[in-house]
This record gives sequence, structure tokens and C-alpha cells, in this order.
Amino acid sequence: MKAAAKAHTNIALIKYWGKRDESLILPMNNSLSLTLDGFYTTTAVEFQENLTADRFYLNDRLVEGAEYRRVTAFLDRIRQAAGRPDAFAEIHSTNHVPTAAGFASSASGFAALAAATAKAIDLPVNEQQLSIMTRHGSGSACRSIYGGFVEWEKGIKADGSDSYAVPIAPADHWDIRVAAVILSSAEKKVLSREGMRRTVETSSYYPAWVDSIPDDLAAIKDGIAHKDFEKVGVIAEANCLRMHATTLAASPPFSYWQSTTFSIMEAVQDLREAGVPVFFTIDAGPNVKVLYLPEQEETIRSTLLGIPGVHDVTVSRPGQGVSYI
Amino acid sequence: MKAAAKAHTNIALIKYWGKRDESLILPMNNSLSLTLDGFYTTTAVEFQENLTADRFYLNDRLVEGAEYRRVTAFLDRIRQAAGRPDAFAEIHSTNHVPTAAGFASSASGFAALAAATAKAIDLPVNEQQLSIMTRHGSGSACRSIYGGFVEWEKGIKADGSDSYAVPIAPADHWDIRVAAVILSSAEKKVLSREGMRRTVETSSYYPAWVDSIPDDLAAIKDGIAHKDFEKVGVIAEANCLRMHATTLAASPPFSYWQSTTFSIMEAVQDLREAGVPVFFTIDAGPNVKVLYLPEQEETIRSTLLGIPGVHDVTVSRPGQGVSYI
Repeated sequence: MKAAAKAHTNIALIKYWGKRDESLILPMNNSLSLTLDGFYTTTAVEFQENLTADRFYLNDRLVEGAEYRRVTAFLDRIRQAAGRPDAFAEIHSTNHVPTAAGFASSASGFAALAAATAKAIDLPVNEQQLSIMTRHGSGSACRSIYGGFVEWEKGIKADGSDSYAVPIAPADHWDIRVAAVILSSAEKKVLSREGMRRTVETSSYYPAWVDSIPDDLAAIKDGIAHKDFEKVGVIAEANCLRMHATTLAASPPFSYWQSTTFSIMEAVQDLREAGVPVFFTIDAGPNVKVLYLPEQEETIRSTLLGIPGVHDVTVSRPGQGVSYI
Repeated sequence: MKAAAKAHTNIALIKYWGKRDESLILPMNNSLSLTLDGFYTTTAVEFQENLTADRFYLNDRLVEGAEYRRVTAFLDRIRQAAGRPDAFAEIHSTNHVPTAAGFASSASGFAALAAATAKAIDLPVNEQQLSIMTRHGSGSACRSIYGGFVEWEKGIKADGSDSYAVPIAPADHWDIRVAAVILSSAEKKVLSREGMRRTVETSSYYPAWVDSIPDDLAAIKDGIAHKDFEKVGVIAEANCLRMHATTLAASPPFSYWQSTTFSIMEAVQDLREAGVPVFFTIDAGPNVKVLYLPEQEETIRSTLLGIPGVHDVTVSRPGQGVSYI
């Protein structure tokens, strides 16, 4: 009745932006990500006879309140699927995802939790079922089941049974790098979940965003297949800017960027004008992720670290999917 | 055969963004501006018998090349309308519009030039005809014929005869202030004319921009009529952000902003969160214009001057329309 799993976080190159169903976490559009080796969560789950409720420890700290309820509600679905609605677990989870890096630890967290819980309660699941299960905890987490390049198919069914991740290319397909630029001070004024909802409901640019996704996806998958870095970078950066532009047309308008975010975007574009193939992408927050090829490592690191307001840079390579440990 | 005129520049609160006819300078959408007393051009025009070509002095410097040809082509239309195709003029124009302030001196420049030229060549024109004439030199210049709040009606005719400015409220209707924030270094990487064209042709968000204008216009005109500063500011700022968002969805995407632009936007929003009614608007460049009421003058000036990268702040009040001097 015990198991442990490890899952990496991922960065979307084609963004997940907007839900068609808030409670089932079903997206308006397909998205595509790269799983990253530098950031991960390990989670051990043990179902115990004497427990009358789950106990959840995150980084050795007992968690209570809303965060605890989100985890226990997540386990409820798995307990019920396993026919063991009264089985409760002790969960120990460790995040190797610094919050300051602007990655949602929920992605690696729920992927590792789903895998460890299903195995501990002896519920046989394939990766597709695991991806769906994970999606109920956090949308983008469903992509962390697989390593390398991963697409989340939005699906069309009302029950979400066809909304899951599929692998596009494994981690060893292509050694590209992602530098997570950590800002000295990053306050997230608008939560991603609220910003997403406000954009879907009020932004007059949102429908055109959704319509733009199929072309982006087809082109970036072609770029990944042919290891065409310029193509992948151009599409990822444009997709990111198009996503953030939807928030400027929301009512009221808002932006996840800070002035340092903008400085980093400028620095990346300046490097590119100087002939360095490098691109950025930004999730629903002020932090910037920079995409480049291994031979540019030193140029990228030194340039980024020289920008005022940049605290640190952490580099990732393509990472593996969820695994049992 | 001589006359002199003075015209002020203007700042758009509902942006002119995109042409439906490049050669006649016909816009895709109505726009609305405030004429500003702080920035103006004075122009003297004298038709002389001995001249075989126009001579154009700007700030006491003889102008040649493309800038000269733009002016002489502009005079060609007026000469022909006056039935004097062989009359040439000496023109002395003085700009009181610092380039660094990010205002197009073309707005005040062509308005003053049209008025002085028509009078010097004895072509009787009313203000509507003067606005159309001015529009051929520079689109937004057609609004500088009038003082105060001005709307440029896009018109629907192919020949542009119904595309001109109309006065909404005179300069003395309402004492609001506009601070032009001058950046220490402002390079305009994408020219406004080219950026406008690229956006119209490639941005998937552009149609929704055009569709959004009628609601903005109706609301801001109501706000102006009732001197509702909050309403006018909210609409102007949202309209500006919606315009700039179209460029992020262009192909390739681009932005007129710089990191200091973003810092100023943040400072304005921070002031607002602290209870100060203040809003920003930004044209096709990195400079920011800040809207506020007279009683906030000191707060606004000191806050703006304290932002790194801000060189100076120049304050305007509502200005008068074109006049003969």
C-alpha cells in the first residue's frame, strides 16, 4: 500500500490559455510543452489502516487549509476509482521547483501524486488514464506524465475522457536548453487562474487566440520533428506574445509582465539581432524562460545575469516523464 | 500672397490605428483626441513671383530630400484647388514640439501649413475642408484643426470627402492635464507607418480592434460631456492597451514599448491603487502621456520624475484649434 514517484515540471511552447469547463479542467485549445529536467517533485504515498483522513506533508511541513483540501479532493477521485473510498494516506512530497523561478510546482506535484497514489492503492492505469487523472489536479500537470515534447489534446467530449497528453518526441530527441530567469522581486498581481477566466470572459481578442492555435501547433510540431530551432523559437515566442496580448484586451485590462520582464524580452531580441539564435516564452507571471542551443550557453547566461533586476538563472534540458522511485 | 498660422499637436484618447486607403490616408476607425496647448507649430507661407519651386525652412534650416518632397506634394493639392498650379512659395516653419516628447510634429505641422497656404493663395476653405486638406499630409493632423476634444470621422466614401475631424468639446470645457513623459533614450525601432501597415495586414487581433471602437467612442464622449474623469481615463487607457496588443499578434510580432515605458505604466497603476485618479496613453512609440486633474499636478510630476529612465516631464492643458497669426 505504498509507492513513490518523481515527475518533472514542463514549460508550454504553445500555451494552455482558457478553460471550456472549470470544474473538469478542460481547455479551450490544445497546448504543447517541453518537460524540463531541472525542476521536479518527488512524492511518497502510503495508505494506512489507522488513518481517518489524509495527511499531506510538503517539504516536511504538514499542510492544512485550502492546499490540503485540493490534495485530498484529488485523492478522492482515485480512491473512488479503486473502489476504496475509505482508504486514507500519508503523503510526503518534496518540491525541487523554486517558486521564484515562476514554474507552477502544481505541474510536477500533481503528476507525481497521481502516479504514486494510483500505484499505492493498486489501481492499474496506463499513461493516458494517468494523464486524465492528473489533469483534474492541475491542467498543465497532465503534460508532465511524458518526457520531452508533449501535446495536450483538448478533446471535445463533455466528460473530459478525451482530454489528455500525448508524447510528441522523447527527451533524447533534441538537446535544447531552457534558462529560467529568476527575478529579484516578482509579485504576481493577478493569479493565473483568475486572469485566465477574466480573459476568456471579457477579452475581445480571445476568440482569435483560440483560432490561431491549430496553425501554430502544426508548424511547431514540424519544427520539432526536423529539429529546426529557428522555426520552433519563432512560433513559441509569437504564441507567448499572442497569449499575453489577450490580457491587454480584457476588461479591465491587465498584464503579467513587470518592467524587468520587458528588459529580458528586449535583451533576447537584441541577442537575436546580433545573430544569436535565442527566443523567450513567458507563462502567466513575470518570469521569462529563454530557449537556446547548448553552444550558446555561456553567451546566454552572462547576458541574462547582466540585466538589472535578474537574480539568477537556472538551466534545464529536456526531462523524462513520470517514473516510480 | 502671404499668411501665417499656428496649430497645436494632439493626443489620441481613442487611437487612429490602421488605414483603409494608404494614398488618401483614410482610416479604418474613428478616433478621438485632445488638442494640447504645450506643443505647436507656427508656419509662414509666402507665394513669390520669382520662385520656380517651393522653398521650405524648418526651424531656420532649409529642408531637402524626402521631407521636402512631402511638403511640396502637399502644396500641389492646394495650388491645384486654387487654380494656381504654377505658384510656388517660401515656407518658414517652427516646431515647438520636442521630438523626444514622442509627439508627431507632423500633426501640428501639416495643420499650420494647410491653414497658412490656403490663406496665402487666397483659397477660401471652411474648417471641414481644411481638415480634409490637412489629412492628406498626415492623418492625425486633421484633428489639430480644432481645439479641445475632437473626433475624426473615418467616413465611408472612396474619395475621402467624408473623412474629417469634428469638434466634440472646446478647450475651455474641461481643464484636464496631460504630462508628456520624456525618456532618457527612446529609439523607435518600428516606424509607426510601417507598424500600422504590418498590423492591419497580419495581426489576427486587428478585426476585433476595429470592432471595439464604436463602444469606446460612445462611452468616452459621454464621459467628456459629463466631465467624468474616471470614465474617460479608464476608456483611454484600455483603448491604448488594446491598440498595442494588436502589434503583439502581428507577424512578426513587435512592440513600441521599452522597459521604461513599462515602468511608467506600472507607476501610474500604482498611483491609482493608492487612490490618485491618473491614467496613461501611449502612441506608436515608447513615450507615455499621463492624464490627470489639476489638483494632482505635484504628485504626478514628482512620481514621474522619480522613475529611472525618465528624463523630463512636460505638462499641457487643452489647446486651441488652428489660428492665423
